[in-house]
Amino acid sequence: MAANTFGTALRLTSFGESHGRAVGGILDGFPAGVKIDFEFLQSEMQRRRPGQSKLATSRNESDEVEFLSGIYEGTSTGSPIAFMVNNKDVKSSDYEHLKDTFRPSHADFTYQEKYGVRDHRGGGRSSARETLARVVGGALAKMMLRHYNIEITAYVSSIGTIDMSPKNAWPDKQDIEQSLVRCPDNAASEKMIELIEQTRESGDTLGGVVSCYITGIKPGLGEPVFDKLHADLGKAMLSINAVKGFDYGSGFRAARMKGSEHNDQFVKTGQHIATKTNYSGGIQGGISNGETIYFRVAFKPVATLMSDQQSVDQQGNETTIIGKGRHDVCVVPRAVPIVEAMAALVLADQLLRQRMNQL
Amino acid sequence: MAANTFGTALRLTSFGESHGRAVGGILDGFPAGVKIDFEFLQSEMQRRRPGQSKLATSRNESDEVEFLSGIYEGTSTGSPIAFMVNNKDVKSSDYEHLKDTFRPSHADFTYQEKYGVRDHRGGGRSSARETLARVVGGALAKMMLRHYNIEITAYVSSIGTIDMSPKNAWPDKQDIEQSLVRCPDNAASEKMIELIEQTRESGDTLGGVVSCYITGIKPGLGEPVFDKLHADLGKAMLSINAVKGFDYGSGFRAARMKGSEHNDQFVKTGQHIATKTNYSGGIQGGISNGETIYFRVAFKPVATLMSDQQSVDQQGNETTIIGKGRHDVCVVPRAVPIVEAMAALVLADQLLRQRMNQL
Amino acid sequence: MAANTFGTALRLTSFGESHGRAVGGILDGFPAGVKIDFEFLQSEMQRRRPGQSKLATSRNESDEVEFLSGIYEGTSTGSPIAFMVNNKDVKSSDYEHLKDTFRPSHADFTYQEKYGVRDHRGGGRSSARETLARVVGGALAKMMLRHYNIEITAYVSSIGTIDMSPKNAWPDKQDIEQSLVRCPDNAASEKMIELIEQTRESGDTLGGVVSCYITGIKPGLGEPVFDKLHADLGKAMLSINAVKGFDYGSGFRAARMKGSEHNDQFVKTGQHIATKTNYSGGIQGGISNGETIYFRVAFKPVATLMSDQQSVDQQGNETTIIGKGRHDVCVVPRAVPIVEAMAALVLADQLLRQRMNQL
Amino acid sequence: MAANTFGTALRLTSFGESHGRAVGGILDGFPAGVKIDFEFLQSEMQRRRPGQSKLATSRNESDEVEFLSGIYEGTSTGSPIAFMVNNKDVKSSDYEHLKDTFRPSHADFTYQEKYGVRDHRGGGRSSARETLARVVGGALAKMMLRHYNIEITAYVSSIGTIDMSPKNAWPDKQDIEQSLVRCPDNAASEKMIELIEQTRESGDTLGGVVSCYITGIKPGLGEPVFDKLHADLGKAMLSINAVKGFDYGSGFRAARMKGSEHNDQFVKTGQHIATKTNYSGGIQGGISNGETIYFRVAFKPVATLMSDQQSVDQQGNETTIIGKGRHDVCVVPRAVPIVEAMAALVLADQLLRQRMNQL
Repeated sequence: MAANTFGTALRLTSFGESHGRAVGGILDGFPAGVKIDFEFLQSEMQRRRPGQSKLATSRNESDEVEFLSGIYEGTSTGSPIAFMVNNKDVKSSDYEHLKDTFRPSHADFTYQEKYGVRDHRGGGRSSARETLARVVGGALAKMMLRHYNIEITAYVSSIGTIDMSPKNAWPDKQDIEQSLVRCPDNAASEKMIELIEQTRESGDTLGGVVSCYITGIKPGLGEPVFDKLHADLGKAMLSINAVKGFDYGSGFRAARMKGSEHNDQFVKTGQHIATKTNYSGGIQGGISNGETIYFRVAFKPVATLMSDQQSVDQQGNETTIIGKGRHDVCVVPRAVPIVEAMAALVLADQLLRQRMNQL
Repeated sequence: MAANTFGTALRLTSFGESHGRAVGGILDGFPAGVKIDFEFLQSEMQRRRPGQSKLATSRNESDEVEFLSGIYEGTSTGSPIAFMVNNKDVKSSDYEHLKDTFRPSHADFTYQEKYGVRDHRGGGRSSARETLARVVGGALAKMMLRHYNIEITAYVSSIGTIDMSPKNAWPDKQDIEQSLVRCPDNAASEKMIELIEQTRESGDTLGGVVSCYITGIKPGLGEPVFDKLHADLGKAMLSINAVKGFDYGSGFRAARMKGSEHNDQFVKTGQHIATKTNYSGGIQGGISNGETIYFRVAFKPVATLMSDQQSVDQQGNETTIIGKGRHDVCVVPRAVPIVEAMAALVLADQLLRQRMNQL
Repeated sequence: MAANTFGTALRLTSFGESHGRAVGGILDGFPAGVKIDFEFLQSEMQRRRPGQSKLATSRNESDEVEFLSGIYEGTSTGSPIAFMVNNKDVKSSDYEHLKDTFRPSHADFTYQEKYGVRDHRGGGRSSARETLARVVGGALAKMMLRHYNIEITAYVSSIGTIDMSPKNAWPDKQDIEQSLVRCPDNAASEKMIELIEQTRESGDTLGGVVSCYITGIKPGLGEPVFDKLHADLGKAMLSINAVKGFDYGSGFRAARMKGSEHNDQFVKTGQHIATKTNYSGGIQGGISNGETIYFRVAFKPVATLMSDQQSVDQQGNETTIIGKGRHDVCVVPRAVPIVEAMAALVLADQLLRQRMNQL
Repeated sequence: MAANTFGTALRLTSFGESHGRAVGGILDGFPAGVKIDFEFLQSEMQRRRPGQSKLATSRNESDEVEFLSGIYEGTSTGSPIAFMVNNKDVKSSDYEHLKDTFRPSHADFTYQEKYGVRDHRGGGRSSARETLARVVGGALAKMMLRHYNIEITAYVSSIGTIDMSPKNAWPDKQDIEQSLVRCPDNAASEKMIELIEQTRESGDTLGGVVSCYITGIKPGLGEPVFDKLHADLGKAMLSINAVKGFDYGSGFRAARMKGSEHNDQFVKTGQHIATKTNYSGGIQGGISNGETIYFRVAFKPVATLMSDQQSVDQQGNETTIIGKGRHDVCVVPRAVPIVEAMAALVLADQLLRQRMNQL
């Protein structure tokens, strides 16, 4: 009972292995009448793409999205939108030496145990290439969210031990995107780049944290018990490769605070009821309260190293994995559009669901 | 499109408001042939119950579970198991003064915005009393997991600023349960109790962190893309009232580590393939690898204070909420069985789902 | 992976065995703000009840519905509505002689094979008493449908070999309900009653056909591919105990017609586009077109006879089942409110879903 | 909330419009380790294809299935199987004259009302070309069912007013496939062919009935309440274009029978418990009993005529639709593999689900 579908009212089903014929998906439940902005879509793909800077892997993936259905004369029809991206730059032979080997902290061993068979090439289904489908689905969701003035912005707040300095305001998209590592703090950004270069030289890898904030959400989104808005966001983020943790609003910090510090006082601002502080992260009782939603996502360091590692093969024999191939030292900057895409899918889903809660 | 159902193969649907007629649920998909251990069930209810110690609220809830279906001669039949707990100790008048008021950092405002109507008494559906259904469902899931030797153990690892000291081994259930605050570190436990007493006197409240580890899981549980084992666990935890964050294995700490430190080397141990370290937290590529699963859950401080707070009513008029009633200073010790219950539901669900992945 | 939940946006989960503690259910996704008409609910229960006339079983079931949640001050709150009906008149000993026996054309054998264990008393979960939950869920759905002026009317069109005569107009609810067998054709109604009396004397049983029509549906309900409106209605009806067939509009008759006869010509009527004929039964391409929806449901004769029958027990030994107990000769008149209830659940579900198809 | 996904454990999501880029789907939940029989797949596609005989439409569709994922070295991996068929023979201009017109008894009007926009070319999403995805999904399901010796056989039992004569035994696949109209009764087959030729000359169309039987099913498949095996089969069939009715076992005929005639007596046959007669159609209480499952599916006559018809356009103006283009007089023979495919999907789904009902 594999589960390659995400969402309730708006559902993304993804398919594809790293070195198979193609990756792609079907977005079902997308409302009719949304104008499809193909240029924006391609720019989102570009943001996710490897090889976008000297810092990232040199693989050349053009990643052109081909739409197969659900769009007529540039507008969504309400029918399922199927799309695919061909796998062009397939060097399966790069992986031949790994056919029987379990790479440390990869999914090789667990897939073998789960299915009794696996497509070892490039990690097969466990490859981060699967996130292509998420970025396409997310870009479509963003086109829908525009109609509600909902804006999602993610950025890198730390890489390894380098943290961005705390700011008083949420960063601009422009300041984020002009940084090679998508960190809007210039000083931190430069240190992160330096750290990445050093780490590459030592054949090692890095993790980091992506932060995300969302504006324009009206009160009322999110379901109160199991499908709380932050629970859906959390699951969305935790489903991204290499993610190890999620918190929202005051997050783990809340555990150390007193109730009198943490409570967000309600005040009337113009015609709206707002809160003075926002430790709640825009969500109370699982439902949006109209304030800015924000959360953090922790990524572990890349598991594929450029240095040699000990492991075992399928028979349990010891083996050495030689560090080679084309791999990122740190994928966190490239995770930024994926975090946004998953957030967009959750919000679009909950927006549609909210239409059904009153008579 | 309210979502009061949790799970895919094993599904818990919960119902009930704090001051309604009853709370309860239906557990569907529970396999036939499981011997129901009513004594164990009641002990789990007892662990969750308020008023279990001088530290907790003095509300008197007997919380007897009444089973309505699905069990015949003490054994599950495969039919849905419905259960309920009557709401006996209902003092709705305690909440009359809050009818039109939005309590800070509660769900009053967001429910009103979502539904246009709400049952204000005791928080209605947003009350933590809803977790009764989770504990019953979780107890049943644990009875099923016993057949697979799967054991789930949660404990309090911090309250406010008091942290448990790091240990070399996972704590025993007995050491946990003999602490009033369910913290297996004696010294920390005493400090936590002291902190709770002090905080009570100042009319304030506390949050904390619950840690959980799971043993006996075979490799292969969890679905690889969206329903990753840790993503399902994360959603389960984030759906519990007052939870602000979740991480597993190395968690947020992973973001600061190098790949060479973080990778878990595979080794052959007897007939099994194991890992030397376990930063992966027993899950790789979303699928269990046979090592111990562990994760942390952050709880915010209780929002109901015993001191006065400013707020607004439904018309936006300023109002003062008087601190009174019977409320916990810190619910984290009582959250321990709820964390275990939700973990049990996830594991039982994924165990059933795993039966379908091979021919 | 038992499936005791019906519906997508509006979901009824039912529970309960014939001789267990109670039967009932949870209706989730029901919108907030619907005034609950308890009197109407009880009248629907009354329509379903056994013992309502000299023709039906003499079991005395008071069937009072107790609501446990989701309703506050007589209005739905958007939270799940749980309800139960106690099983009062439990004579399990009536079934002791059947403990190890498989009654012909009942579910005894198949339950035993499926689960390896069963609650044999009164058919357990396979009892028609389960339909109580459907009638409650359906009554709530009807309260919601009233706001859209949607009216569902079912009636008995045949019992055994007695058919109602064809009419030019759809029958009135009043004409239906004043017949003991819920057949609006007086002459046929009398013959049916006579046939039932005769059949009772011979210890035999009867089946029949329930017809149903639905008015007030706007164009656009129903999903175009798998969840076609008539496919959902068909599944709903086929899930009722003893149902053997379903057709809608021209139904099986369509297979013998020419396209030139069968096509429904579009015409403009006032401001609306309508069809001249209605062989489509109000549904085209799986979606309502605004015309009257109508369908037929075939019920097999009751399997429990008052005469002796040969069978085998669990060990395969031959055994004789003695015809005794309190059983209906023909349940078709009592199926009328159940057919309506299931139709109401489908329509309310599709009404909610239709809110999401456009931007 | 469009629903283009069918199934619970095994899920087919279909996509594609008649004149879009491609049609196809994703089959998720298909177990790992199934050898893919590409030759068989193509033969199933061939059975569905138009233009297979002089009786059918002359459209030339090569319908080559391209697999995009989920298969490695000829074996399923447990990952989603995506597939597509290009739309090669696209003559959209054939439909230009219908852009604003609502064809009688088609889905033009209802799609327009539902979505506010539509792809009118060839019926868009409502085209029978969508059934390609069902046949591919069904062929994969059949490959899985082979491992359980489950065999599904459908055939044409009537076209228009020509019925096949009743037989004592279920027909052979070979006798079915050698008939141009897939009717295993030679005499009836010839009359049906004659009727089709006559009807073509008059510019008219025909409907008919497809019958289906299934052998090799063990007792225990099907869920007892809402997802009864026959309810799932019924929904599957009713979701096929042009289907107006479904019954199983004794079907509508049961309504006229007495219980004493209709009950299927249990007997011990060798080591198995069997029934003497099989009016139950192999399903009791919604669960398979091990006997042969059989059912009937009624198809209305094709709505596209070769003669002129009156209708209205989107503005409600009267218009005449000229009969032209390439269309089948009767699609019932081509529906045979589609009926089998949908039955295969239901059985494979229920087979997987049945793995979860016991401890």
